[in-house]
Amino acid sequence: MSDINRVWRLRKRPLGDITDDDLTLEEEAIPEPGDGEFLIRLDFLSLDPTNRVWMSDMDQYMPPVELSEPMRGIVCGTVLQSKHPDYGEGIIVSGIGSWADYQIGTPETMNPMGDLGSLATVDAFSTFAVVGPTAYFGLLDIGEPKAGETVVISAAAGAVGSIAGQIAKIKDCRVVGIAGTAEKCRWITEDLGFDAAINYRTEDVPQALAAACPNGIDVYFDNVGGAILDACLKQMNLFGRIPTCGLISQYNATDPVPGPYNYSMMLMQRLRVQGFIVLDFADRYPEAIRALGQWMEEGKLQVRTEIVDGLENALQTARKLFSGEHSGKLMIRV
Amino acid sequence: MSDINRVWRLRKRPLGDITDDDLTLEEEAIPEPGDGEFLIRLDFLSLDPTNRVWMSDMDQYMPPVELSEPMRGIVCGTVLQSKHPDYGEGIIVSGIGSWADYQIGTPETMNPMGDLGSLATVDAFSTFAVVGPTAYFGLLDIGEPKAGETVVISAAAGAVGSIAGQIAKIKDCRVVGIAGTAEKCRWITEDLGFDAAINYRTEDVPQALAAACPNGIDVYFDNVGGAILDACLKQMNLFGRIPTCGLISQYNATDPVPGPYNYSMMLMQRLRVQGFIVLDFADRYPEAIRALGQWMEEGKLQVRTEIVDGLENALQTARKLFSGEHSGKLMIRV
Repeated sequence: MSDINRVWRLRKRPLGDITDDDLTLEEEAIPEPGDGEFLIRLDFLSLDPTNRVWMSDMDQYMPPVELSEPMRGIVCGTVLQSKHPDYGEGIIVSGIGSWADYQIGTPETMNPMGDLGSLATVDAFSTFAVVGPTAYFGLLDIGEPKAGETVVISAAAGAVGSIAGQIAKIKDCRVVGIAGTAEKCRWITEDLGFDAAINYRTEDVPQALAAACPNGIDVYFDNVGGAILDACLKQMNLFGRIPTCGLISQYNATDPVPGPYNYSMMLMQRLRVQGFIVLDFADRYPEAIRALGQWMEEGKLQVRTEIVDGLENALQTARKLFSGEHSGKLMIRV
Repeated sequence: MSDINRVWRLRKRPLGDITDDDLTLEEEAIPEPGDGEFLIRLDFLSLDPTNRVWMSDMDQYMPPVELSEPMRGIVCGTVLQSKHPDYGEGIIVSGIGSWADYQIGTPETMNPMGDLGSLATVDAFSTFAVVGPTAYFGLLDIGEPKAGETVVISAAAGAVGSIAGQIAKIKDCRVVGIAGTAEKCRWITEDLGFDAAINYRTEDVPQALAAACPNGIDVYFDNVGGAILDACLKQMNLFGRIPTCGLISQYNATDPVPGPYNYSMMLMQRLRVQGFIVLDFADRYPEAIRALGQWMEEGKLQVRTEIVDGLENALQTARKLFSGEHSGKLMIRV
């Protein structure tokens, strides 16, 4: 165990894209756990679009990270010292922590990973900590897809989108994914079994949607908002559902972003749009993890994790979330 | 019975506000009912914001009225001749018909009004045909207000809004109405019992909402869309509900209308926005009519009907729907 702790701190709130000046990597002392707390060594740091939201003082679902505070992140780590009876040394935990080599956990913020069966820690953390339950509850509880319906998914090669699409296939839906490169489109159709893919950078999305969804859209799993949401709204079927999982197209916006121009479709087609975050379903994580784990073991659910080594690379790697350079789950290994 | 039938026909689709040129009143022969049909004499013609939608070829929940066809409307009339065994002469019916002195009905488009108890035909038609069930199902089924919650209603002195607000009071909510004149604000607070009213023409709506809703907004019953929707979105509580009943602010728009700038609140506050039209609940009308009728008899529900005489005045009267000159239900008596 080193005696230096590297901690990414929020230096200023990004205006638009995240820049090198917005966070700084500081060298600090390793904290001491108090009663009921434990010290963990970071093993994996999950990088998620919602991190960008936490950097801003926009309206959001948690308080934003305060300036000069450690950057918040979804973490997986190993307990090194413990002053809590249920968190013995060596236990692997995951939860909400910070971008730091060493950090304090509590039972409120971090839970033991438990028995992973044949799964590697990294796959379990990658899938079960955030993105798998997000896709599971967003699609099934809010999207309510029925067999034979058409489900469209944006950011479909992303961590959440790729899982949501595979769950929709498991539920016997027609699944159309929207992604930003030919390779991502190939991956989701050929490897993951989506029925069709649309490359939003090279295709006319409304036209491609009409071709790929001859029976209209019943569920649009929205990860991006913006123009793609607008295109989908226009082709939604009566009583369609739109789980709002993310609005990544506007997280970096510096000016007010207009809502969808086709908002009136909500009335005309009697749509239901509903935002959610995975924490809303925290008491049902075991159900999601059971189902996801079983689908993975049965080979019905593939997850792709892109791992970058070194906490020092967290900032530049996080930028990939917005440039669309990666696919699957983006993660730092420490 | 006159032998001349006056029929309002759609001459061209309005661009923006409805003009004198958009519909023409033609004198025609009285139609003959075929087998299974009946002829009615129009007694009352309901004027509703949705009429404007039907005049356009925008996306909508029914086919638009075709050019040169009779204008569609919600009607109440008396059966004069019948070739249907269940619709004897003299029976009073209501349903979807046209802006015409005489017209053909079928069981698919018009239903007998039934036993009205102590209610006048005009009050029963005014409340039960469209606006009462709209307010009832939109507020209760989609808004799901709980006692003690704060419900905000736009177009609150309108036919639907004034009923929705009174139902929310019956359900022990704090009710705040938004309307466009001092008299409307007085009516909904002093006569109808709303807790507060906001005059959107003279007040700063976001500021007035903050003052009138110290605990935030749980249900926003949306009749208007636009800037008022945006202001409400910004102050919605976690897991708030927005029944989308109408978007009157944009029916006359000639350019694409941006959706709400605060759309991201759907995600951050995990809101549910759901469009509906009253026809979606057609199989449950008896439930709504029973409840509304009982509240009216108990004096808990007041309805205001503004009646204008003469079918020839339908066009200019319909314009009042958008200028905000009326309050309550607007109707033509023939």
